[in-house]
Amino acid sequence: MAFTHQHLLGLEGLSRDEILFLIDTADSFKEISERDIKKVPTLRGKTVVGLFYEASTRTRTSFEIAAKRLSADYVSIASSTSSSTKGETLLDTARNIAAMRPDCLVIRHNASGAPHFLAQRIDCPVVNAGDGAHEHPTQALLDLLTIRDHVKRLDDLTVAIVGDILHSRVTRSNVHALKALGARVRLVGPPTLLPAEAAAWGEVHNDLHDGVRNADVIMMLRLQRERQGRNFLPSLDEYSRYFCLTRAALSAAAPNAVVLHPGPINRGVEIASDVADGAESLIMDQVTNGVAVRMAVLFLLANRARQPSVEAPAVAAEPAEAPRLRRKAG
Amino acid sequence: MAFTHQHLLGLEGLSRDEILFLIDTADSFKEISERDIKKVPTLRGKTVVGLFYEASTRTRTSFEIAAKRLSADYVSIASSTSSSTKGETLLDTARNIAAMRPDCLVIRHNASGAPHFLAQRIDCPVVNAGDGAHEHPTQALLDLLTIRDHVKRLDDLTVAIVGDILHSRVTRSNVHALKALGARVRLVGPPTLLPAEAAAWGEVHNDLHDGVRNADVIMMLRLQRERQGRNFLPSLDEYSRYFCLTRAALSAAAPNAVVLHPGPINRGVEIASDVADGAESLIMDQVTNGVAVRMAVLFLLANRARQPSVEAPAVAAEPAEAPRLRRKAG
Amino acid sequence: MAFTHQHLLGLEGLSRDEILFLIDTADSFKEISERDIKKVPTLRGKTVVGLFYEASTRTRTSFEIAAKRLSADYVSIASSTSSSTKGETLLDTARNIAAMRPDCLVIRHNASGAPHFLAQRIDCPVVNAGDGAHEHPTQALLDLLTIRDHVKRLDDLTVAIVGDILHSRVTRSNVHALKALGARVRLVGPPTLLPAEAAAWGEVHNDLHDGVRNADVIMMLRLQRERQGRNFLPSLDEYSRYFCLTRAALSAAAPNAVVLHPGPINRGVEIASDVADGAESLIMDQVTNGVAVRMAVLFLLANRARQPSVEAPAVAAEPAEAPRLRRKAG
Repeated sequence: MAFTHQHLLGLEGLSRDEILFLIDTADSFKEISERDIKKVPTLRGKTVVGLFYEASTRTRTSFEIAAKRLSADYVSIASSTSSSTKGETLLDTARNIAAMRPDCLVIRHNASGAPHFLAQRIDCPVVNAGDGAHEHPTQALLDLLTIRDHVKRLDDLTVAIVGDILHSRVTRSNVHALKALGARVRLVGPPTLLPAEAAAWGEVHNDLHDGVRNADVIMMLRLQRERQGRNFLPSLDEYSRYFCLTRAALSAAAPNAVVLHPGPINRGVEIASDVADGAESLIMDQVTNGVAVRMAVLFLLANRARQPSVEAPAVAAEPAEAPRLRRKAG
Repeated sequence: MAFTHQHLLGLEGLSRDEILFLIDTADSFKEISERDIKKVPTLRGKTVVGLFYEASTRTRTSFEIAAKRLSADYVSIASSTSSSTKGETLLDTARNIAAMRPDCLVIRHNASGAPHFLAQRIDCPVVNAGDGAHEHPTQALLDLLTIRDHVKRLDDLTVAIVGDILHSRVTRSNVHALKALGARVRLVGPPTLLPAEAAAWGEVHNDLHDGVRNADVIMMLRLQRERQGRNFLPSLDEYSRYFCLTRAALSAAAPNAVVLHPGPINRGVEIASDVADGAESLIMDQVTNGVAVRMAVLFLLANRARQPSVEAPAVAAEPAEAPRLRRKAG
Repeated sequence: MAFTHQHLLGLEGLSRDEILFLIDTADSFKEISERDIKKVPTLRGKTVVGLFYEASTRTRTSFEIAAKRLSADYVSIASSTSSSTKGETLLDTARNIAAMRPDCLVIRHNASGAPHFLAQRIDCPVVNAGDGAHEHPTQALLDLLTIRDHVKRLDDLTVAIVGDILHSRVTRSNVHALKALGARVRLVGPPTLLPAEAAAWGEVHNDLHDGVRNADVIMMLRLQRERQGRNFLPSLDEYSRYFCLTRAALSAAAPNAVVLHPGPINRGVEIASDVADGAESLIMDQVTNGVAVRMAVLFLLANRARQPSVEAPAVAAEPAEAPRLRRKAG
């Protein structure tokens, strides 16, 4: 099969076969980063632009390394909020970049739906590198690739996602993919950090031990400390007492259970150091696989001739709310 | 002919033939960015350094993409004002960079004349990417290339430049070039935003409708909102009421008139959205042509063997006032 | 001989032969930057990551240009203190980077010993680009290469290091190297800026004229103005009066004495402009040689097959104090 989408905006709406195709493609790119000469000419003469409206070290670096190992030119634009005070809309910024003829635009934005909004309006493949609390598709793909590497299957899995479900775009992308692949999903966290729709995504648990019991995979989420003041948590200490994945908590999981975390980790907050560094932890494998996933995505999207132009709308507006992922004709 | 200057500091003083040669060279680079593989080996092994003392997304990205599509190595130095608190002069910073043997230094600085000051003292081609309210030569070149693409001529044109003329380096570069090419130039704006010398540049108008009447080309300028507090304008609303290019105002221009804007645009302030996105608008073409213009300039300046060393002055000083562009012996 | 170390963490503990080998290798890379095409394929397909926790223009740019002239991919990570507020430890950040399979990690950090701490725990060559007040080995190597270029020897030298010895990592690296090479070292500065161990490094002088008398080499240090408030100095003026290298002070040195400074210079504070720009000054040669030194170091460390993995410790901790440079088995 082939991947016929022009953009990668999210995993919602992708079929099981499409998700597996992305993971398989990423798998085939892994060995390049293990070579002595880690570079292939696949995207020579292509321009990848990274437009990051939120701070990011890990994801931005991963995309940059992925682009460069494919021989693409990578151009980084770190947009602080100060640029919007110059009066330019997000769409105008993106249209300006698109006018310079990049082959792929990688965007992270704090507004859910921003990448979808742009994808409909600019003539350039768009990759969502994280939009608000909506989706982070390459993170979920690297999670799945890492699980398959170690558990050796993606079907018949019980996966517990633990922590700040409410704000987690990683969760949303993983839920879409895990359900497409037939996994049993559990959402585990305090009631204040569980959105109403969680019950539609899987089993909801407010107790860590119940939540991870017999799970094959435990995906821990980063507690975003900066949100503490918003009354989601009584205190960091209290959160850790009930939701930190310690070795004791882990013992309730299935034998050979594996632990993932998208990073950066808060040692002693949501995950104990001996678990983060233990044999069950796949955290470093996730990071290594992240480069392969981004190579695969850039390869699939940027390595094609330019598409016919999309008509720009007469009146430009900012996204008001998160649009759903639209399927494109291939 | 050939371009015999070592630097591109401004368009003032360049001959009609030199300006047309730059535009023709840019024209020949346009198709590279439309290729499937957008890269030529022209500047392989050359180092281009971008030294930006003012925030810039569009111009910096354009130079970076231009350099990379020519296979040059591009090194970006974003100098905040904090680095000058370390006590290093601009000249010392530039001499340090020059000692690393770059083939071209692209500089943006808030002091008018800074690039000229450096060009006389360092042994490296210098490109002015905007200096204070003085010149922004690559912007004017891309404006002219875009006009020629669409209007099919550069002589016998009536060009109205509208808005904050006082602070506009884009205006100064365009005025020098347009006059060399024989165009009729109008400067349109409120009296507080028109410098005394405007009358020497062309016809001065304080009324938008009069200013654009029968114009072939309308160049709108960005209203730099951050300067509002300096008493140049009674209010933003009042400015827009009189100087925003609406469809009604545009109707006074010549049939087939074209509209340019250097960006970023303030929708509804100096330009109405339906004009910015309308058929007359060449704003996106300007951005696309910007990459070609920068490729041409880097090609002409960086692609030569190193020049004999220029003697550094015994006592280094900062530029006291904006020097005029000096003609160099070729 | 060959350089058998996996990292370059400091010059302390390196033998005379190892130091000379590094300088000789750098010497052989100098001519590349003087070519018309300044690029060799030596590190094609290698990834060099620059992780700078302190502001740096000169050193960061020098490493980036060095990497690119060797055809390596260079990825820059500028970590402000804000990233540590996200709760990630330095070691976790470095392990994440290492998981992306770079071939060399260049790090600058304000904590003395940070590079050594990481080198023991990650599976990637580490280059110290300056750690606290500890070491800055590539700076000392470029100083030595520059001295040898001009004085034509590295033995039987009298070297006066002048200024803020206390905070100077440049001094520490130079002292280790100069002593290994048999030079006579003098440490010159006010008592408040001389650490207790200075007496073990060489002759201590509190008077500039005494300190530079008959010296072959004078290494001036930058007065870090931002530290003035900490009561190390009565005033900047008073410092300059006694420790600024003027032409008069320089006249006490040996005939043909040379003057070095790591930059950025404070003209009129620690060095007079006519000395900084005079015939004795090697400051610009230092910068040019810096690129060659970094090319040599990256070539020696990054251009090898990956090493077997180092086991990560179960519990990660931040460095408590500056560790000593450990010799590695080759």
